[in-house]
Amino acid sequence: MAVCALFVCADSMLVEAADPLPSWNEGAAKQAIVKFDQSTTTEGTTNFVKPSERIATFDNDGTLWAEKPIYTQLAFAFDRVKALAPQHPEWKTKEPFASLLRGDPKAALAGGEQAIAEIVMATHAGMTTEDFNRVVMDWIATARHPVTGRLYTDMVYQPMLELLAYLRANGFETYIVSGGGVEFMRPWTQRVYGVPPEQVIGSQGKLKYEWSNNVAALVKLPAVQFVDDKEGKPIGIQMFIGRRPVAAFGNSDGDQQMLEWTTIGDGRRLGLLVHHDDAVREWAYDRKSSVGRLDKALDEASERGWVVVSMKNDWKTIFPPPALTPTGREK
Amino acid sequence: MAVCALFVCADSMLVEAADPLPSWNEGAAKQAIVKFDQSTTTEGTTNFVKPSERIATFDNDGTLWAEKPIYTQLAFAFDRVKALAPQHPEWKTKEPFASLLRGDPKAALAGGEQAIAEIVMATHAGMTTEDFNRVVMDWIATARHPVTGRLYTDMVYQPMLELLAYLRANGFETYIVSGGGVEFMRPWTQRVYGVPPEQVIGSQGKLKYEWSNNVAALVKLPAVQFVDDKEGKPIGIQMFIGRRPVAAFGNSDGDQQMLEWTTIGDGRRLGLLVHHDDAVREWAYDRKSSVGRLDKALDEASERGWVVVSMKNDWKTIFPPPALTPTGREK
Repeated sequence: MAVCALFVCADSMLVEAADPLPSWNEGAAKQAIVKFDQSTTTEGTTNFVKPSERIATFDNDGTLWAEKPIYTQLAFAFDRVKALAPQHPEWKTKEPFASLLRGDPKAALAGGEQAIAEIVMATHAGMTTEDFNRVVMDWIATARHPVTGRLYTDMVYQPMLELLAYLRANGFETYIVSGGGVEFMRPWTQRVYGVPPEQVIGSQGKLKYEWSNNVAALVKLPAVQFVDDKEGKPIGIQMFIGRRPVAAFGNSDGDQQMLEWTTIGDGRRLGLLVHHDDAVREWAYDRKSSVGRLDKALDEASERGWVVVSMKNDWKTIFPPPALTPTGREK
Repeated sequence: MAVCALFVCADSMLVEAADPLPSWNEGAAKQAIVKFDQSTTTEGTTNFVKPSERIATFDNDGTLWAEKPIYTQLAFAFDRVKALAPQHPEWKTKEPFASLLRGDPKAALAGGEQAIAEIVMATHAGMTTEDFNRVVMDWIATARHPVTGRLYTDMVYQPMLELLAYLRANGFETYIVSGGGVEFMRPWTQRVYGVPPEQVIGSQGKLKYEWSNNVAALVKLPAVQFVDDKEGKPIGIQMFIGRRPVAAFGNSDGDQQMLEWTTIGDGRRLGLLVHHDDAVREWAYDRKSSVGRLDKALDEASERGWVVVSMKNDWKTIFPPPALTPTGREK
């Protein structure tokens, strides 16, 4: 009996010793996360949050995976323009498509938001949701990041994967709330982040229901239904979840309103910004970047007590080692 | 040891004998439900559906609770017009408000959809989502059905409450997909149906995020964001859930497209229509009713093998006995 008790004791010590956030350096950021988690999930304390209210929202681009040199979804759209070009001979002389097909994306993007909108509409509409799903699955399984040569789904941040798993293990529902297209993310978020499609909120195009000859289809139209960015993020959270999160994670001014809405609520809250300050292991950018600009939200962070994570100092690893990437895990 | 084994055996027989759908008469409808459930949740069989794909969608008005003599949300809007009248002296002479305030809702509704839209906008917009939530909670706690005198939340169908619980016990996520307003339903669906706010899909108005003097608010605007009815139902399902349901439950032509979209999918599917044919215990209406018209969907039901539930013949009870109503359960 004594031996048996000893084993039980040793076993529970081992469990306690396992760090759920091994890729986070010891420091203020990690402490703030652990303290938030403990104080909201310990029953009988002032800050206890009942399980049904444990909603945590995560931005995607720049918060869960890399967004440099361009957003992954834009790289997808560029590749789709090339794939669809044979069906569109007129693109040879029509901007922004002509520049893209000549291999000059910079010239294509000189048209600004209007050019991007045209590229997105031409590549994300005019097909059924099921066909688009297949196109995304095929692309994401093979397309590689232009700088690292890794699959895009392996360009995810190991410390954030641990954070997602840690919060879920403690009863949180982890939602993605991204400016990216919801139909572009849902096919792979379960596999990569452990987030099911119904917990992905993003920008959306309009859909049309078609029914003919006993076939039902949802067709993607070239029109915007909802933009899930900046002010759109708290609005999307209300539309889709109907509860205010207790924790929100972002990296740019596009996440500022989501963090405000989350942390201004009663009781203990956590707002966190990932600061891209590691030019060696990732990219260093903030106030002047066109992609993922972090400026106003950085100013607001100190005012509101948001945690600012230094990728350089707070993270032991940026990307998962090959065996732990989403692709590696499946092998 | 033998005695012990006997007890275990008797116990498991008792468990087997407990009918999860006691308010359903034995018959084709109940059989179809049980057969669907068993064949989709038995591992190793052709029709097995893995837990993450077990999505069931339920219409609300006329499917989960009564919709006669008028939709509950319209009764709420009428009461709100009366409550808000002192702040709107101009309503005394302005239709459709003037008729409503004179106690003549029929005259008010003579203006058709335009009149209804004006009443809904005037009572559902111009306040924050949190204030609206409070208004709904206060109203739903006290307002009573004009015919039965019961609380509206007690005008729910006992057999459908059992069906929701039965499916959830077998790993299904039970979503509400209603033409009604999402902000009107979410405050009470957890308590009444066991459905949390994030699993309620409905029609929505536009929202605006406001931030001033360190106060964040989402303001309800008098403009439509999304109409979750007819073709809108499969669209709403795609927008909010991103998966096709395996079972869908409705009662009117407004649910036809949701049932098509659900049952046309591969594998075993269940489409079910509640047919209001019990003039004694509830109301009898179908092809010619202005509220909850069931006409085209009824024609399509036999073609597609949808289960048509006769409230008169298939249901032992319509409404819960007082002790089992949502209100009674809380006492």
